[in-house]
Amino acid sequence: MPAQAKFIVVEGLEGAGKSTAIAFVKQQLEQQGIKPLCTREPGGTPMAERLRELVKQVQQDEVVAPQTELLLMYAARMQLICNVIKPALAAGQWVLADRHDMSSRAYQGGGRQLDEQFINQLRNAVLGDLRPDLTLYLDIDPAIGLERARQRGALDRIEQEQLAFFQRTRQKYLQIAHTEPNIAIIDASQPLTGVQQQLALALQPLWMG
Amino acid sequence: MPAQAKFIVVEGLEGAGKSTAIAFVKQQLEQQGIKPLCTREPGGTPMAERLRELVKQVQQDEVVAPQTELLLMYAARMQLICNVIKPALAAGQWVLADRHDMSSRAYQGGGRQLDEQFINQLRNAVLGDLRPDLTLYLDIDPAIGLERARQRGALDRIEQEQLAFFQRTRQKYLQIAHTEPNIAIIDASQPLTGVQQQLALALQPLWMG
Repeated sequence: MPAQAKFIVVEGLEGAGKSTAIAFVKQQLEQQGIKPLCTREPGGTPMAERLRELVKQVQQDEVVAPQTELLLMYAARMQLICNVIKPALAAGQWVLADRHDMSSRAYQGGGRQLDEQFINQLRNAVLGDLRPDLTLYLDIDPAIGLERARQRGALDRIEQEQLAFFQRTRQKYLQIAHTEPNIAIIDASQPLTGVQQQLALALQPLWMG
Repeated sequence: MPAQAKFIVVEGLEGAGKSTAIAFVKQQLEQQGIKPLCTREPGGTPMAERLRELVKQVQQDEVVAPQTELLLMYAARMQLICNVIKPALAAGQWVLADRHDMSSRAYQGGGRQLDEQFINQLRNAVLGDLRPDLTLYLDIDPAIGLERARQRGALDRIEQEQLAFFQRTRQKYLQIAHTEPNIAIIDASQPLTGVQQQLALALQPLWMG
């Protein structure tokens, strides 16, 4: 009998190498005969993609209140959970996610320094008991990550924040990763083969347990 | 010295006569030398208006989860509170609102029967201590209100719900109006002059107290 469908999340700052890591994880899963459903956040459903566009666009007619930004992230997440993630897991399909809840905690909680109680109330309301089976957090110095991201092309509204914003975001990522279960910290500053070794190692328990 | 700026909300089902009531309330305020800022929800800022469009459009590429709908309503509300309502009140300008928080409790809580705890967590997180000084709830039998709304033109996604949805919405409206302070129940089925008499009476304490 196949193992129960698992929910794997890849997290990290801009330029940490999430896309490359996701492609590698997908390959690893396929070697085990697992075809994961891949999602990205914010986004992943027609409405959630429109919210992604709305929240990320550089030109805004007004200041986007940080609390509004957070609510839009959770609205998009709710739609993705209800229409994609939960149905997939229930049908036995693994889910491989490019960002999930940890991003909101790190960016809006750490970066924007939004009130933790506000975030926790939203999290509880939206997530219920849904938690990733494994989160792969790609850790990178934001100065390096942002430089990589810049070389890739134009930055969106959130990516245009100051370095201090991303330093606070990284601190929050690390704090969560050090204190909560099922999160692997991957050193994303090392050469690709090292990153891939760490990823492969972190994945092993999923099909051994 | 002028009285402190007040926050007045007009609530009610489709076809209850909110627009006519708002025009009358505005006139009453102007007779007292008060020029209110008028808002509508969902909407009232560029981003909130885009969310309004997104949530109300009839053609959707997917099912809109009721929890997503609620989160979008609160995202739009947050933006309006931060960028419009609070700055106006702080500057001494009265605010006259076409719908506010009571709509979410009635439509998503009553109509869609969303979990009350979920709604309350969101309300607390978004509203903080902001409460209307007066809510004018226009009560109407939904069968009558919907017929009026239909004669006015095409119905949006939410207005296309079944009668039972609006009956539950009305019950929730009435339940809140009967148990919470600073809400006047206006019988919207009576002739216009009767409605206006009730509105004028409900407004009196605002400039007498």
